[in-house]
Amino acid sequence: MTLFERDAFPTVPENDFGFTLKATDGMARRGEVKTAWGTIQTPVFMPVGTAASVKAMMPQSVASTGAEIILSNTYHLMLRPGPDRVERLGGVRKMMGWHKPLLTDSGGFQVMSLGALRKIDEDGVTFKSHLDGSAHRLSPEISTDIQHKLDATITMAFDECTPYPATHEVAAESMRLSMRWAKRSRDAFVARKGYGQFGIVQGSVFEDLRAESVEKLRELDFEGYAIGGLAVGEGQEAMFDTLDFTTPMMVDEKPRYLMGVGKPSDLVGAVARGVDMFDCVLPTRSGRTGQAFTHRGTVNIKNARHKDDDRPLDEACSCPACSLYGRAYLHHLFKADEVQGLMLLTWHNLQYYQDLMAGMRSAIEQGSFASFQAQFEAQQAMGDIDPL
Amino acid sequence: MTLFERDAFPTVPENDFGFTLKATDGMARRGEVKTAWGTIQTPVFMPVGTAASVKAMMPQSVASTGAEIILSNTYHLMLRPGPDRVERLGGVRKMMGWHKPLLTDSGGFQVMSLGALRKIDEDGVTFKSHLDGSAHRLSPEISTDIQHKLDATITMAFDECTPYPATHEVAAESMRLSMRWAKRSRDAFVARKGYGQFGIVQGSVFEDLRAESVEKLRELDFEGYAIGGLAVGEGQEAMFDTLDFTTPMMVDEKPRYLMGVGKPSDLVGAVARGVDMFDCVLPTRSGRTGQAFTHRGTVNIKNARHKDDDRPLDEACSCPACSLYGRAYLHHLFKADEVQGLMLLTWHNLQYYQDLMAGMRSAIEQGSFASFQAQFEAQQAMGDIDPL
Repeated sequence: MTLFERDAFPTVPENDFGFTLKATDGMARRGEVKTAWGTIQTPVFMPVGTAASVKAMMPQSVASTGAEIILSNTYHLMLRPGPDRVERLGGVRKMMGWHKPLLTDSGGFQVMSLGALRKIDEDGVTFKSHLDGSAHRLSPEISTDIQHKLDATITMAFDECTPYPATHEVAAESMRLSMRWAKRSRDAFVARKGYGQFGIVQGSVFEDLRAESVEKLRELDFEGYAIGGLAVGEGQEAMFDTLDFTTPMMVDEKPRYLMGVGKPSDLVGAVARGVDMFDCVLPTRSGRTGQAFTHRGTVNIKNARHKDDDRPLDEACSCPACSLYGRAYLHHLFKADEVQGLMLLTWHNLQYYQDLMAGMRSAIEQGSFASFQAQFEAQQAMGDIDPL
Repeated sequence: MTLFERDAFPTVPENDFGFTLKATDGMARRGEVKTAWGTIQTPVFMPVGTAASVKAMMPQSVASTGAEIILSNTYHLMLRPGPDRVERLGGVRKMMGWHKPLLTDSGGFQVMSLGALRKIDEDGVTFKSHLDGSAHRLSPEISTDIQHKLDATITMAFDECTPYPATHEVAAESMRLSMRWAKRSRDAFVARKGYGQFGIVQGSVFEDLRAESVEKLRELDFEGYAIGGLAVGEGQEAMFDTLDFTTPMMVDEKPRYLMGVGKPSDLVGAVARGVDMFDCVLPTRSGRTGQAFTHRGTVNIKNARHKDDDRPLDEACSCPACSLYGRAYLHHLFKADEVQGLMLLTWHNLQYYQDLMAGMRSAIEQGSFASFQAQFEAQQAMGDIDPL
């Protein structure tokens, strides 16, 4: 495993920001995003490093799974350690020793989740910190400036994540506020070589609103477009239905990023519908609680049936958890509350997600995405390996 | 970093068990312990992997610090996952992916610490599990058998750790019980190529009792001898005083192991007094709470003075925490309760301990141990680096 040496932290941008569509297979797309700090092969999954750490992982280990870009959360970092401090330390990537590209969200989603602790107006949002109750303010301009200080390779426009379910009227009003904020976010963005900013399509599950949102964002000519307001409780079917009419409206020549998604089957279904980029806490969060994703579905390693089972967690996986240990030991680590247990399952889940994305990229290149998807679904439906 | 591949788990013993004294400098000794599964350079520090995991570390990372042997606890492993299960999984080393030698304690120390939960008699100890209150039994024969099932490269005799302070009468009675148990432990030990068993010298701080204990153990011809009943509250001065009269009584041609010790200054002072082997939870446990050992003393990384300090934790250290990150980021990880924080500080502390041992080994070889010790003490007394 190659370490990211501090001295070798890159300071000269490698590329201008740009997206190249390399192949398609049905709606599925195989592309490449060039950035200042490295090139990303799409479809891509971005591990989440909320507070400038992919929980329980060294950056070297994250990179060893094949991850080419990670995501950090503006909300958490603005509260701690604070944007000015991060800027003095050279940005999130330098501070945390991650030499590859970084995407930050805008803080909007987390702030909206605060419920009674936040108050929204036309200009932005005032909220209280979940850490100490202190008052803070986010607006399109403030969020964009903070993301600049965090040195995000990809900055997200500040928007309101429309709650689900929402009436057409509420969804329309929310989407149009987000579109006014998108314009202000775009105006506040400082263009730099190899850096980009993405606008976020809103409109809940309504086709006409998604169309209006896509159209308004297109005028602002972002470097990429995200699909927001999904994976918020609508379920996989409604999410896929929304993608079915949304991605075809979106331009071909920019990356499409489905925010906060998802389970392995969500990723496969969304790639089939033309999505290029994903992020989700699921592999890392699940790993810390003992839930593993495998090519034969999910496994709860804390289940007693593993306690004498020396077979690997997933025989198709090459991560340390699968190549160096048996299930019995992983089970023991979780029963004994050993930190190494959550380190290993996090590592495995990230490896599984990266392998899944690599498999999809390869299938699209070969024009065999439909059979890849069929095999994925068949294997997932098999259930875990036979009992001992 | 080289991984310990599962397929490459060693099955043919490398050596017969044996100790070679390579150099001395005053009382300090530079030696080598050959075992079935690798050779250990002494003086050596053994990281503690209580439940078959050095907490928050991958075995590869433990080995990368220079560690050549680790310690696991019989008490914890007999309760969970259980000796028979560990045996079926190939022993502790195979189960946890540690291909180098392993020492297990006898369980005696932990059981004695249970206080009201244990009852001692001539044959052994009955106690209740701290996990679920279930009743268990340890005796010289049972402990030795369990350590065999755990596949300990070095087995410890089952003894009673005499509490401190103890009257001469209590200490004598306790020591003599331990000596009867040492004989029974020795009889129960199954000799195997490259494996060894250590007897434990008891007798509290009383010279005549230590002498009697050394003499009784010598008759049993163990492969090595430990000094027990220290680091139990007597303080460094009394510990050093006890070592001053105990190590000279011990044979030269066997390794001397001071159990459960200690702070960096304890290690240096004990090596100066002729000790070869150490184990302690201090570097790992302290690392998890944010306390770091450095060549200029201890540092609490949670202290606010580090929050804008981008300098390394210990500029003399090559571990990932020191070579890849600044103090400000380590501080942030602890403030944000990130698992990576305790991973990094554990790694650093283990690296510091291994570097300290390597420095002592080198100094003894060069006949410069006294100046090494003087420099160590001067640097520790300097205190942490100047404020920003």
